Amino acid sequence: MSNKLCRIALDGMGGDGAPSVMVEGAVAAVKEDSGIEIHITGDEEALNRELSGHEYDKDRIIVVPTTEVIETAEPPVVAVHNKKDSSMVRALYLVKNGECDAYLSAGSTGATLVGGQIIVGRIKGVERPALAPVIPTEKGVSVLIDCGANVDARASQVLQFAQMGSLYSENVIGVKKPRVGLVNIGAEEEKGNALVKEVYPLLKECPGINFVGNVEARDISAGVADVVVCEAFVGNVILKMYEGVASTFYHLLKNALLTNAVSKAGALLVKPYIKEAMKDFTMTKYGAAPLLGCKGLVMKTHGSCDVTEVKNSLIQCREFVESGITGRMEELFGTALKGR
Amino acid sequence: MSNKLCRIALDGMGGDGAPSVMVEGAVAAVKEDSGIEIHITGDEEALNRELSGHEYDKDRIIVVPTTEVIETAEPPVVAVHNKKDSSMVRALYLVKNGECDAYLSAGSTGATLVGGQIIVGRIKGVERPALAPVIPTEKGVSVLIDCGANVDARASQVLQFAQMGSLYSENVIGVKKPRVGLVNIGAEEEKGNALVKEVYPLLKECPGINFVGNVEARDISAGVADVVVCEAFVGNVILKMYEGVASTFYHLLKNALLTNAVSKAGALLVKPYIKEAMKDFTMTKYGAAPLLGCKGLVMKTHGSCDVTEVKNSLIQCREFVESGITGRMEELFGTALKGR
Repeated sequence: MSNKLCRIALDGMGGDGAPSVMVEGAVAAVKEDSGIEIHITGDEEALNRELSGHEYDKDRIIVVPTTEVIETAEPPVVAVHNKKDSSMVRALYLVKNGECDAYLSAGSTGATLVGGQIIVGRIKGVERPALAPVIPTEKGVSVLIDCGANVDARASQVLQFAQMGSLYSENVIGVKKPRVGLVNIGAEEEKGNALVKEVYPLLKECPGINFVGNVEARDISAGVADVVVCEAFVGNVILKMYEGVASTFYHLLKNALLTNAVSKAGALLVKPYIKEAMKDFTMTKYGAAPLLGCKGLVMKTHGSCDVTEVKNSLIQCREFVESGITGRMEELFGTALKGR
Repeated sequence: MSNKLCRIALDGMGGDGAPSVMVEGAVAAVKEDSGIEIHITGDEEALNRELSGHEYDKDRIIVVPTTEVIETAEPPVVAVHNKKDSSMVRALYLVKNGECDAYLSAGSTGATLVGGQIIVGRIKGVERPALAPVIPTEKGVSVLIDCGANVDARASQVLQFAQMGSLYSENVIGVKKPRVGLVNIGAEEEKGNALVKEVYPLLKECPGINFVGNVEARDISAGVADVVVCEAFVGNVILKMYEGVASTFYHLLKNALLTNAVSKAGALLVKPYIKEAMKDFTMTKYGAAPLLGCKGLVMKTHGSCDVTEVKNSLIQCREFVESGITGRMEELFGTALKGR
């Protein structure tokens, strides 16, 4: 029975609200999802104190005592190397050693990316794992890949991002034949910088993906592609422009509604509908992003996540593991290697 | 008297509404601004027919007959080379030959960028001219440089973008000591790709600009810098994310307000205030973007511009010319050359 559970290593000390938000999220997840077992790493006393306030299936939340914490500001490589008994490094080792199937942290993105690669390790044949958040669009959601910290990618790496993103979209998000688009500054094949010009023909000739050509940044939020492929610098700019422009719009809208008594009266009537329409367009709703290409699932969620997000991210971890896409990637890239 | 007028070469055949929108814009501009003289290039019969319907100072709109038109879809270099009697190429030559002080087109951006560089020519010492649109922010506006078509810029070129953008912000937009920010994926100096890591120290040590360090895309729309510096691929992504996310928000908002009778009643009350708050946040309001670094002013406005935008862009041309920033750039980059 227990070996059928999805075992998740949860970094109990990462994120703004840790450890209490992490503990509450873990409790909520095991209550809602009977297929999850959580190994939560962190300060034993603090975790047990938080847990003691809750009713839950004791067998499915296991405290793994650790003594160190990696702070967001620490240089990732140094932190991962030096803090062997940190909640993050220990959680990563649980996956590495096969004691857990997935890793989730709301702590330092840099340390998770570095730790995921050097501790959990890359799938054989994967040149570079890629961070693949889900972004909201007018048509639903798209996968944006890569948003990681490793910039200056090579064309062969970007090709793999497209392949991994496509597998993720199809097997985890459930899109049939996901449309894969390459971010470019024009729709025509000959447009772009040296990198995308090199990537375009690779994508065009790649079997197993549904390449729809170049996509312009203007059309991403309209949902022009299910998998939006780019190197990490551009991916970061896209993700953060989403956040920035959305936030600016909320401010302008809020100020507009608060202008005077008339606008405030109108606001009372329209607010619920605006809220409903915008609710799918907040980045935090899709908080957890997988680092695709690692031997086990490495998942990062927002530093500012709340209990519901932690719970949802944990359930997402189980769904991801059950989709079996790590095995599919091993097959895809392992075969590609043998074919060389 | 006439030699004090700002003489603008207007591409009468560029843009979706040409020639009528161009002609009407020209008429509106000479009516509103007594310091402007317009040389409008294009089909003589069509232009005269459009002009005949208007009352205006005949001395200040001169028709320059041309026989060809460059279409948006044409490859820019080929088009500029082959269509010597196009409205665009002839207008550029008017600036090149000193018959006009500025060039404005709503036609092909690529052809304007190519033509600006090879016909009007670069200022001595400028490695690469850069397209610098103005973008709305919560605090006002910022200059985004480069949004041109020349990607894969070198660090020394990006440094010049910062210098030119700073001059533009200070002398044309009127910002005192404009804050110059480098687009990066983190705030720390050591962050980024190879290009921005090379650019950062150059900006830090550059005299005459107020470098405020790295800026993240998330903070651009909040107005974190007056001059937002990046290479053209990233600039294009930023500009188009603005457009795309803004457009998605308008759609969501519109749908929300149209949900049912209650939301519609509220919408009647709030709409004027929302419109007022958002009006400064439409990209088309800041349509005309200069190609900085050319020997004369080369200005590009939106293909979909209306009469008011054409008029405003023409007045903007005069203000730009009178600011004397082309002379300042000649001085800055000429001196830098001599110093080598």
